[in-house]
Amino acid sequence: MSGNRCEPDGNENQGNGDQGNGDWGAFASAQDAFASLTPLIAPRSVAIIGASDDPTRIGGRPLAYMKARGFRGPIYPVNPKRRTVQELAAFPSIDALPEVPDVAIIAVPAPHVLENVEALGARGTRGVIVLSAGFAEVDAAGAKAQEALAAAARRHGMRLLGPNCLGLFNDRIGFYPTFSSSLETGYPLPGRIGIVSQSGAFGTHIFTIARNRGLGTPLCVTTGNEADVTIGDVIGWLAADPEIDVIVAYAEGINAPRRFLAALEAARAARQPVIMMKVGRSALGAEAARSHTASLAGDDRVMDSVLEASGVLRVRTTEEMLDFAYAATARLYPPRPRLGVITVSGGAGVMISDYAAELGLAMPPLPEEAQAALKALVPFSAPRNPVDCTAQVFNEPALIGRFAEAVAGAGYEALLAFFSQTGGAASIAPHLRAELAPVRRKHPDMLAVLSVIADRELTRAYEAEGFLVFEDPARAVAAIAAMGRLGAAFTAPERAPPPALPPFTRPASLADEKEAKDFLAALGFPVPPGERVWSAAEAVAAARRLGFPLVLKLLSPDLPHKSDIGGVRLGLGDEEAVAAAFDELERRLATHRPEARRAGMLLERMVEGGVECLIGLHYDPVFGPVAAFGLGGIFVELFDDVILHRCPFGIDVAKDMIHKSRGARLLEGARGRPKADIEAFALLLAKVSALGAALGPRLVALDLNPVFALAEGVVIGDALIELRNAQMGQNEG
Amino acid sequence: MSGNRCEPDGNENQGNGDQGNGDWGAFASAQDAFASLTPLIAPRSVAIIGASDDPTRIGGRPLAYMKARGFRGPIYPVNPKRRTVQELAAFPSIDALPEVPDVAIIAVPAPHVLENVEALGARGTRGVIVLSAGFAEVDAAGAKAQEALAAAARRHGMRLLGPNCLGLFNDRIGFYPTFSSSLETGYPLPGRIGIVSQSGAFGTHIFTIARNRGLGTPLCVTTGNEADVTIGDVIGWLAADPEIDVIVAYAEGINAPRRFLAALEAARAARQPVIMMKVGRSALGAEAARSHTASLAGDDRVMDSVLEASGVLRVRTTEEMLDFAYAATARLYPPRPRLGVITVSGGAGVMISDYAAELGLAMPPLPEEAQAALKALVPFSAPRNPVDCTAQVFNEPALIGRFAEAVAGAGYEALLAFFSQTGGAASIAPHLRAELAPVRRKHPDMLAVLSVIADRELTRAYEAEGFLVFEDPARAVAAIAAMGRLGAAFTAPERAPPPALPPFTRPASLADEKEAKDFLAALGFPVPPGERVWSAAEAVAAARRLGFPLVLKLLSPDLPHKSDIGGVRLGLGDEEAVAAAFDELERRLATHRPEARRAGMLLERMVEGGVECLIGLHYDPVFGPVAAFGLGGIFVELFDDVILHRCPFGIDVAKDMIHKSRGARLLEGARGRPKADIEAFALLLAKVSALGAALGPRLVALDLNPVFALAEGVVIGDALIELRNAQMGQNEG
Repeated sequence: MSGNRCEPDGNENQGNGDQGNGDWGAFASAQDAFASLTPLIAPRSVAIIGASDDPTRIGGRPLAYMKARGFRGPIYPVNPKRRTVQELAAFPSIDALPEVPDVAIIAVPAPHVLENVEALGARGTRGVIVLSAGFAEVDAAGAKAQEALAAAARRHGMRLLGPNCLGLFNDRIGFYPTFSSSLETGYPLPGRIGIVSQSGAFGTHIFTIARNRGLGTPLCVTTGNEADVTIGDVIGWLAADPEIDVIVAYAEGINAPRRFLAALEAARAARQPVIMMKVGRSALGAEAARSHTASLAGDDRVMDSVLEASGVLRVRTTEEMLDFAYAATARLYPPRPRLGVITVSGGAGVMISDYAAELGLAMPPLPEEAQAALKALVPFSAPRNPVDCTAQVFNEPALIGRFAEAVAGAGYEALLAFFSQTGGAASIAPHLRAELAPVRRKHPDMLAVLSVIADRELTRAYEAEGFLVFEDPARAVAAIAAMGRLGAAFTAPERAPPPALPPFTRPASLADEKEAKDFLAALGFPVPPGERVWSAAEAVAAARRLGFPLVLKLLSPDLPHKSDIGGVRLGLGDEEAVAAAFDELERRLATHRPEARRAGMLLERMVEGGVECLIGLHYDPVFGPVAAFGLGGIFVELFDDVILHRCPFGIDVAKDMIHKSRGARLLEGARGRPKADIEAFALLLAKVSALGAALGPRLVALDLNPVFALAEGVVIGDALIELRNAQMGQNEG
Repeated sequence: MSGNRCEPDGNENQGNGDQGNGDWGAFASAQDAFASLTPLIAPRSVAIIGASDDPTRIGGRPLAYMKARGFRGPIYPVNPKRRTVQELAAFPSIDALPEVPDVAIIAVPAPHVLENVEALGARGTRGVIVLSAGFAEVDAAGAKAQEALAAAARRHGMRLLGPNCLGLFNDRIGFYPTFSSSLETGYPLPGRIGIVSQSGAFGTHIFTIARNRGLGTPLCVTTGNEADVTIGDVIGWLAADPEIDVIVAYAEGINAPRRFLAALEAARAARQPVIMMKVGRSALGAEAARSHTASLAGDDRVMDSVLEASGVLRVRTTEEMLDFAYAATARLYPPRPRLGVITVSGGAGVMISDYAAELGLAMPPLPEEAQAALKALVPFSAPRNPVDCTAQVFNEPALIGRFAEAVAGAGYEALLAFFSQTGGAASIAPHLRAELAPVRRKHPDMLAVLSVIADRELTRAYEAEGFLVFEDPARAVAAIAAMGRLGAAFTAPERAPPPALPPFTRPASLADEKEAKDFLAALGFPVPPGERVWSAAEAVAAARRLGFPLVLKLLSPDLPHKSDIGGVRLGLGDEEAVAAAFDELERRLATHRPEARRAGMLLERMVEGGVECLIGLHYDPVFGPVAAFGLGGIFVELFDDVILHRCPFGIDVAKDMIHKSRGARLLEGARGRPKADIEAFALLLAKVSALGAALGPRLVALDLNPVFALAEGVVIGDALIELRNAQMGQNEG
């Protein structure tokens, strides 16, 4: 073994391994990087390079929209061929502008973009929005041109949005650097939801559906090719915006992952929900597929685990995205809410209970006295929880308030009331509102949701009184559960730091199981006593030192999966058996893999008992080292029961991973087995994660399979570590 | 063993065991029973018992609605206190009616319902709709009163809907025997969707949401307490209605399960989709939980398996229900459709691909030549599949037709085109329609779906041209996949009959493993050679006859789970070991369960190799005997990997069950194992299902666990059969 010396520091920010502060680019911190977007999103002045007099052209629409919405600042059209553009004075060049604009919109053909970026940079403009297409999305030459744009922006200390993006809008200041035709049919409504999308078309899709639903999205940023500004940057900027309460994000891939993670952390710290759709769920990353564990797990599971750990609500449809965003505008995030349900239909109550059970929402019964009181009011009611108040309440509306107060007063953190179309009926709705509003006011911290079918006006009236309104009770339950998940994320205890590893020398390679185990043993990881032996005689001598029973395994750098040729002999009980096993394995190797390089054999004490598990590491192309836990053997293969987490992490996360796995019940003593030493196992898992972080991009894959979870302690049964050559680039600019 | 002689006939209709034709009540067949609903749903004349002059009262609303919608036939209000009711001539009594009405609506207090049912029956009325509440939903006395209603109806040969139901409407003939207030805000739209719901409130909820979505539901039946008419009856009636294309159903429980199953079969034969929400997913049936297998499976899985086998689309939300119903109105059900996707957003294409992959929809690429042709049209397009035609097409609308024709012409059975809000833009939609309509006409058998955000008028225009329209692409994909599932159900090959069992005598009980295995052996099921032994000497003598290796197990009717006290000794290699094992087990029994009745021990040849599986039977309180298949051991416990099917079934269904289980890969030769003899295993599973059907309600539970799936053949390792006393009632009236 040889390599460069390394002091793993267990720093959470070491997620991407070897990378330093370069992640923040020219900025001292992620926060500084996010704040630098202000000229792009909320400028005081704007220039339009390639401004057009035709309000339907790419260079014309931004101006038309900004005029229509009254941008609060000077607009400088730049067009050498015209004196005015859409009735505003035009300027022949960037140099001719009377002041340095905070931001410039570039809408000229691709070959002319760079010269304009340079000119803007030279004048000191701090942001450019490149609407022009024809860059990395086209071909390699386009990618090169794009890199030149990014380099120019970096050199001038500017932030650059795009190219090949639909731009953005910030309706609060009438800023519309976008050519989206969706604005023809209406501008965004006022509200507190921010949209960020890599795809212009999908961002517009979200915005249009939101507007049709009556949801206010005053801010929408599309990032296109992300030469510089990423969705992470925008999330980070929005997280600090006091007028935004919820961020909805659409992504196809994650660039600058450490800024992305820092942005999610900033949003969580600000108690600002991030609701994200990340497509490409069915694609497996080619790099990740190289390791056995990863081939079972796939890229998208890494994404899932990262988003979950960051408190992001990952959604699969625009509908779910906007349901959750709508619910989040109530700004009530009760962690692990207990749900109280009032219903006028027993069936709806059952359906709601089904959903609540499925989503892990507790629905404890109403206290006995409260039940008895309601039963006295309506004899045929079933006031347990769901509280079926029956349609009787519509004959005597005062009962509705009594039922609602009984549930709210019992301290449920969330209330769902199913009134269906009756709640929208002109004859009943006014009574309902009069009864419910005082209850709502009395319990302002309770998340209060109505399932009613009402027209928009009545819906707004319920909302004004502090209720969320969903037609579909199932969608209401899902939204309540999502708010609970946000609450849990916002109030999560601080995580334990990853365990410290002793200083170690990074090996250039670890050719076989014995080298891998020696490396692990030096780090203090539990491996069985064992020796490399080259002959039957050496094996017998070693056996005397090691004690019985023993295991003998073939070693060869060319044979990572030795059991494929039966290269392992278990349960060797005496010296004779050891000698015979040596001879047999030698014959096997000679028969099946005569060309394989010889590295002797590993004679080891056999581990007895315990539950076979696996611990793995692989290097995710986006998020760097990722650890995996699962039961060993056929479980992982047949049931994909593998839990992933980005490295490094502490023992608390490791325990969560273990308990999250379905197979964990075996470790917890299912089927009369002895309870495994989960403490020791979790410590090993956390240490492996620290090792993953320390190895960084050098890591290809590490497979500890099996790891024996014993009643006391833990032992690594087999180890395979694959490393990349030492000289490697970094994966994040 | 003793019992009554039985000739299992393998008749599919024996699903509920011992029951005879009583299931069809007074009718010769299920079809006759369904047809007898015609006077209820489509009568030529109607009487209203308890008719009210007040159009907002329960006895007033039906008349008001029928007058408003012009019921096509005479309406006879019955009210002894009035000459007219809502301007119609009233009659003082049923006897005073000028003719026998086809149907009568009863809206009098509960205590007076029976006398009216009797009077109507005496006059020869063939249907009654009881809106009155106060029966089984209240208490035991109410249940008794309800049974009296049902008995009276049976005696008079009438069908009775309700009591405690919201009635129904059949807008096609203006028939409105309902007091639903939802009609105040609008009558149903014309269309071809029928609704049936046990819950009045939830039925109204579905109807109201459907109407708000613009879906036509001219028929809606609520069944309430189901004293006689069940949702199965209504489904059976609707299946024969040529003006209904789709049935949506809401259920809380299934009464008269054989009529229900016959109705589903009738709907499938008529290619009429049944889309059903069954709530109570999280509740476990108490009866079913008695068997080990069932306690893992639960009632709702039985429901799932029955609905799936019947070709029903089970849904979880009203939204999904109405999405599928809407899609089904196109009456295109391509089995296993290949999906071609056109998109103006690459991201939407990825998202659609994710969904298609998840739902098992194939998206094969466009043929190479077609791709090349499209690439020539739009150089930046990505025309594989999804076919990303880019927003470029909006600049040159003729391209849209070329792209659509390229995909449609390639023979995809389903087409999904994502145009988002652009497809709803006034400037673009006319071009889009002009381009798409000819393609649609040229390929009438292709399911054609647009994902556009358009107002209702434009949506209707697209629909009139033969397109389905969904805003959300994910919901569009789900609907397309659902239509494919319907197509597969409608074209499913006829199933093989269950295997015949030899005639056998039903045992009164099977006290222990040996009795169970002798019973199974007599039916030709594969059990290992074995003998009951009472002493170590007998055991040794038996061992000589059986050969080695052997297994010895404690037998006692008080010890069904003998391994709990270590009552099994495996791998006995010689006579000495057998004798020692006998003594040891005897000591164990004396120590741990001294009170247990002695029944000797079972000495058996040990089964070597193979994969441990389980086959189970339990008696579902609704659907009767149900068979279960799964891998044995911890799999079933940790992963719930158990596949259920109602008994009996043939070998083809048995093979489907095996392959559906996730653990099946072990039988198929995963991880280098020898392939198991799936043919033999499936035959045993099918035979067990035939046994389940033959045992009928006598069955409590049967557990064969493990069953060894060998490379050749199959052997039952352990058997436990629990039977009920012979004298049992039937579970279906």
